[in-house]
Amino acid sequence: MAKQKPRTLSGFMELLPARQAQFERMAELLRKAYSLYGFTPLDTPIIEASEVLLAKAGGETEKQIYRFTKGDSDLSLRFDLTVPLAKYVALHYADLSFPFRRFQIGKVYRGERAQRGRFREFYQADIDVIGDGKLDIVNEAEIPAVIYQTFTSLGLKRFQIRVNNRKILNGFYQLIHWNHRAGDIMRVVDKLDKIGAEKVGLMLYDEVGMDQDAVDEVLKFISIKGDNQEVLSALEEYRGQNETFDQGLDELNTVVKYLAAFGVPEDHFTVDLTIARGLDYYTGTVYETAMLDHPEIGSICSGGRYDNLAEYYTDKQLPGVGISIGLTRLFYVLEEQGYLNDQLNTAPADVLILPMTDDLSPAIAFATKLRQAGVRAQLYTEQKKFKQKMSYADRLGVPFAAFLGEDEIAQGKVSLKDMATGEQKLLDVDEAAQAVLAALKASGDAAPIKEPERS
Amino acid sequence: MAKQKPRTLSGFMELLPARQAQFERMAELLRKAYSLYGFTPLDTPIIEASEVLLAKAGGETEKQIYRFTKGDSDLSLRFDLTVPLAKYVALHYADLSFPFRRFQIGKVYRGERAQRGRFREFYQADIDVIGDGKLDIVNEAEIPAVIYQTFTSLGLKRFQIRVNNRKILNGFYQLIHWNHRAGDIMRVVDKLDKIGAEKVGLMLYDEVGMDQDAVDEVLKFISIKGDNQEVLSALEEYRGQNETFDQGLDELNTVVKYLAAFGVPEDHFTVDLTIARGLDYYTGTVYETAMLDHPEIGSICSGGRYDNLAEYYTDKQLPGVGISIGLTRLFYVLEEQGYLNDQLNTAPADVLILPMTDDLSPAIAFATKLRQAGVRAQLYTEQKKFKQKMSYADRLGVPFAAFLGEDEIAQGKVSLKDMATGEQKLLDVDEAAQAVLAALKASGDAAPIKEPERS
Repeated sequence: MAKQKPRTLSGFMELLPARQAQFERMAELLRKAYSLYGFTPLDTPIIEASEVLLAKAGGETEKQIYRFTKGDSDLSLRFDLTVPLAKYVALHYADLSFPFRRFQIGKVYRGERAQRGRFREFYQADIDVIGDGKLDIVNEAEIPAVIYQTFTSLGLKRFQIRVNNRKILNGFYQLIHWNHRAGDIMRVVDKLDKIGAEKVGLMLYDEVGMDQDAVDEVLKFISIKGDNQEVLSALEEYRGQNETFDQGLDELNTVVKYLAAFGVPEDHFTVDLTIARGLDYYTGTVYETAMLDHPEIGSICSGGRYDNLAEYYTDKQLPGVGISIGLTRLFYVLEEQGYLNDQLNTAPADVLILPMTDDLSPAIAFATKLRQAGVRAQLYTEQKKFKQKMSYADRLGVPFAAFLGEDEIAQGKVSLKDMATGEQKLLDVDEAAQAVLAALKASGDAAPIKEPERS
Repeated sequence: MAKQKPRTLSGFMELLPARQAQFERMAELLRKAYSLYGFTPLDTPIIEASEVLLAKAGGETEKQIYRFTKGDSDLSLRFDLTVPLAKYVALHYADLSFPFRRFQIGKVYRGERAQRGRFREFYQADIDVIGDGKLDIVNEAEIPAVIYQTFTSLGLKRFQIRVNNRKILNGFYQLIHWNHRAGDIMRVVDKLDKIGAEKVGLMLYDEVGMDQDAVDEVLKFISIKGDNQEVLSALEEYRGQNETFDQGLDELNTVVKYLAAFGVPEDHFTVDLTIARGLDYYTGTVYETAMLDHPEIGSICSGGRYDNLAEYYTDKQLPGVGISIGLTRLFYVLEEQGYLNDQLNTAPADVLILPMTDDLSPAIAFATKLRQAGVRAQLYTEQKKFKQKMSYADRLGVPFAAFLGEDEIAQGKVSLKDMATGEQKLLDVDEAAQAVLAALKASGDAAPIKEPERS
């Protein structure tokens, strides 16, 4: 028969089993972290009616959409989890209780130009809190705690949550009377890390056409640095001149005030006045998260406060705050940078059972006992040489192998081999199950991320 | 602004939060059950190149495919998890260890005619064991244990795993010299439950054109009933006349022999000679699973042994055995029939914390403590009347509410209210965390399925 060459589309991540197990562990820890903060899991279709999904979209986004017809229907694949959330909340408004806190981990689709590290199908892991009409500032103060808990549970240590408030930015630009060009100014300021303050000043003068006084005001503002109290004190200097600014500063004060109670260490959090997160959508606190040793990767978890989630679908005012992790890209980056913990148990089973007799009943009964005790057990019953069986155990990376030969069976025992140490013990069936459970418990909390030693 | 009416496409399941929590719990228990048997989690793209995905497809299946172009690419959404598995194993053959045991829980797409209870986007939950060249019969014997463990862990009790062997069927039809019409005969026999043996006999005579002797042979064969040993004994009567039949009978004997060691109770398993599972694909043991009180629903978990997983992609002989649960349809059926356990805790949080003071630090610190102890905690900080706050707690179904007023804070305590009993206690912060943990542990193992009382 003529064969079809098997292939996976470029831009679509497909992992080998051990890597997939690491990815699953990360997704599981995200679900757990999000759940601890009272977010409920949500699932929405990957396909939506185009007129619904694209009610707001336009420009670059729309070009990337996977859009097609099936029968009479004009359909599109979701390109993020925010638009489906807006649809969901507008559609099911009467059945939801507000604030509505949901997390969603799911695949989204963007037909981007294929290039290394860019994915056309990728997981996003989002949380959002949606209020009905109003939403208290404490929800914004809680987000850094979720980010901190999430990445800490994954095993990441050297990261920093960077926070700003859009009201402070908007108020500041009103205050210097350049709010009509705020978008252009922020686009230039965004280059600060790359080109430095001097060139930012020149561009503001030459390209945006600001007068030198205004340029100096901007440079002074974005040079405000220091610990959180120092930054907040410097911002107090501007108080009393613009209502929006003052409100933003109050909000930022609240966010910083509750950090300690939320369990976020000071060294994992910083107020950063250069962060803006786009132009239109966000209206209050905005968040980015940087890997300290890899600034070139950019933010690995971003989001912010918005005033109107679902204005394209409903007249209801639905303010919210949310963050998103691009999980597929994050996983790719972690692998590239050597951050995946290869000590994580990624084997399909904790014990590989190798029966040595024709009657398999004792080996099967042992497998059943292990499974009842919560141990993942696999029977290996293929007709192979012993060496090949052990090679299989090695390749899977199972922590334990168990042998049941005639001697063991006659004594009601199994030979349990620790694959890491090579140590082999003759144990009662119950003892063996307990020994495996104890060993797994001791090693079971390994995190999927392990930062490389820094030189 | 003109609003776009929000809607979800028909044939696409979108659940409200409490139902979604039940669905997630089912998926989590499936992952756990499959993992206990040494299956590794796999994920593959939802979109594949059409020429790859449709290498084998044709007829009805192909009509249902969501197929479209993006740029120059002819793309299709997967319609099951088996073809992507075949592609995966053929593509990554050199990097896999065999037997390769994987589970996959993912969405698949079929543009079926819209009708109640039919879904165009639905989850399948599959396991497969793939051998390289050969695969031992014990893998087929293990499958009923996986099915039993899976449904038992979900809380289903009144179900039965029904097993047959295609070699027995094929051998039998060879033996009566009607193997050239085996497909037609099996299609008629498949109606046995609905139309009875007499009409099956008439149809075999009239429509298939069998002689009366052959019809009688078929009717005698499919009337073989009884416990497993009785059926196996009756089948022994045919031994020695056809090699395929004898091999199938040996395999069936092995499957039955190891049931007890695999922990499958006799009353949850039956040999059923009327089960065939399609015509071409399966070659050995075949499985169906029936809900005893709802025969009209049909099989809720089916599968079997096949000889060649990936023949469209590779010359390698890759025999396997697998089963599939149509999770979305199962969930729909369980809900319809009142099988979902409404005692399951589906709230987004275990504790809703209601601060009663302006300074929220003590309430936030209490939330942080609960979360560090693994308790899902939500802060409610909206400016609402007390009654509205309690109504919110009621609607979410949180097991506990915690109040922190000035009195409590002064004493370093919280008032913890058990929402089910109404009982309220003043406790130290640590005591409160322990009380919640203890209560959750006591109720935490609730299964998502609870069979209705039968009258």
